[in-house]
Amino acid sequence: MLLGPGDDAAVLGAPDGRVVVTTDLLIEGRHFRRDWSSAYEIGRKAAAQNLSDVVAMGADPTGIVVGLGMPADVGTRWLDDLADGFRDECALVGASVAGGDTTRCDLVVIGVTALGDLGGRAPVTRSGARPGDVVAVAGRLGHAAAGLALLRAGLAGPGAGGGRPDPGGQEDPGGSPEPGGPGALADAHRRPRPPYPCGPQAAALGATAMLDVSDGLLQDLGHVAKASGVGLELDPGSFTVTPEMEQAARLLAADPLEWVLTGGDDHALAATFPAGVRLPPAWTVVGRVVAGGGVRVGGRSPERGGWDHFRE
Amino acid sequence: MLLGPGDDAAVLGAPDGRVVVTTDLLIEGRHFRRDWSSAYEIGRKAAAQNLSDVVAMGADPTGIVVGLGMPADVGTRWLDDLADGFRDECALVGASVAGGDTTRCDLVVIGVTALGDLGGRAPVTRSGARPGDVVAVAGRLGHAAAGLALLRAGLAGPGAGGGRPDPGGQEDPGGSPEPGGPGALADAHRRPRPPYPCGPQAAALGATAMLDVSDGLLQDLGHVAKASGVGLELDPGSFTVTPEMEQAARLLAADPLEWVLTGGDDHALAATFPAGVRLPPAWTVVGRVVAGGGVRVGGRSPERGGWDHFRE
Repeated sequence: MLLGPGDDAAVLGAPDGRVVVTTDLLIEGRHFRRDWSSAYEIGRKAAAQNLSDVVAMGADPTGIVVGLGMPADVGTRWLDDLADGFRDECALVGASVAGGDTTRCDLVVIGVTALGDLGGRAPVTRSGARPGDVVAVAGRLGHAAAGLALLRAGLAGPGAGGGRPDPGGQEDPGGSPEPGGPGALADAHRRPRPPYPCGPQAAALGATAMLDVSDGLLQDLGHVAKASGVGLELDPGSFTVTPEMEQAARLLAADPLEWVLTGGDDHALAATFPAGVRLPPAWTVVGRVVAGGGVRVGGRSPERGGWDHFRE
Repeated sequence: MLLGPGDDAAVLGAPDGRVVVTTDLLIEGRHFRRDWSSAYEIGRKAAAQNLSDVVAMGADPTGIVVGLGMPADVGTRWLDDLADGFRDECALVGASVAGGDTTRCDLVVIGVTALGDLGGRAPVTRSGARPGDVVAVAGRLGHAAAGLALLRAGLAGPGAGGGRPDPGGQEDPGGSPEPGGPGALADAHRRPRPPYPCGPQAAALGATAMLDVSDGLLQDLGHVAKASGVGLELDPGSFTVTPEMEQAARLLAADPLEWVLTGGDDHALAATFPAGVRLPPAWTVVGRVVAGGGVRVGGRSPERGGWDHFRE
């Protein structure tokens, strides 16, 4: 950050000579609830979903700017906690909170714009997948959806400690699952843990297409299939279903694979790679790219088969 | 624009190796009214106020991204018109609409983030004014405030034609006043005309401080005085009061100089320059920088004198 908050605009470094930019608007009651998430968690989540879009291009995030609308009943403490959440999430990737704008609004509205630097790499778009490539994912899938289901069923309460990391505790920037039961899944809904380092890593490894899984893997991979003009065949046995997801699925009489395939908000990365690329352990191969179109799971098409009910 | 909408993020050129970034959130009922402004005008205004912040740093705008929240009753036509407004305002400065995000919201919320390139120049902040400098302004002052007063008094109706330029008409990127009476002033409220070229021009001329006048000249120059640790002496006789403002002032029994000194939303530029700089015609010298602090008009301090009632 070359010039921070307090002027008409901020100035960030863009050493690559290009800048990656993405924006999202989060609306109270739709994207978060103040009774389900602390201000700190909301700040982390709002930053995370934009930083994740930056790394999904293969770029390193450099900073965010925030536009904030809020009712008069939002106190200074809540705002400070929100700002701490922005700051701590950005710190995970070495990015800065470069500036913002606040205004009155009848409900809390958070607009986050994240910038990033490509470090000389080509941006990894959605349109480069080719038949013969493998499909791989990094980060958690289905945790946030399971947590949301638990919260909706009243089976998980407010998080302890407002979602802040333990004092002295080590932050994990790699997006690995937290240990624990229903509370950990609800926490995954409140605060995603995108596998930030995996984005630039995938670009450096020659990923042919990549995106951030925000609306559910099947739906998001559908964008890759369409943009690339290819089909994607996924192996349902290749996905990780953690013990806490098994437990939540038993509690709710649900199929954990539904959460994995259709749950949003975890901000995993999904990418395609040429078949010969040796992938680091953070990546799990879950399928392959074929000629044709659409996404199939275990040979069945979600649109015409047993996965219909996954669609919202 | 190197990569446009449709992926996780867009990619814009940043040839300078630094990027200027600013964001604003516009809330329906607070920053605009759908019954007073067309979607096209709202789009132009939302883009203009952010592009103006970029030029106020001395940078050339390169693009915007938009986050849009909207109720279900907003139709496709309204959205298309809004997007046209973004596009046409950006076109004035050679910038692109690089991407966006739409979501449901109970009221229309527009988050705009604008980026810009410094072209090798140092950013012009608020803190560089020095005693001996002159204070100068470019663009309109008080027009939008007069127009808002007319709209509130019911003396100006909806704009004709939805605010779009005449077919084949020439856009004026220089921020000069429109001809006309109350309608032209209401139009100035609906759609600011920032003097875009004057920002980079001022930076090239060695401006020591600069900002975009969004909250009223006295209030905004107060930020320069404070950040620079100087006083600013303004000459009330140096400001332009146009015939249409005189006319509106008579209609409303108002003092047009109040609008000039305290009206926001015109997005004029105010800057300080070393005394020896020969200023182009778009700039009007309105005062000088002195030792001390605060802003004085005709020797009187707004905080302690006859300008108190200007403060909102």
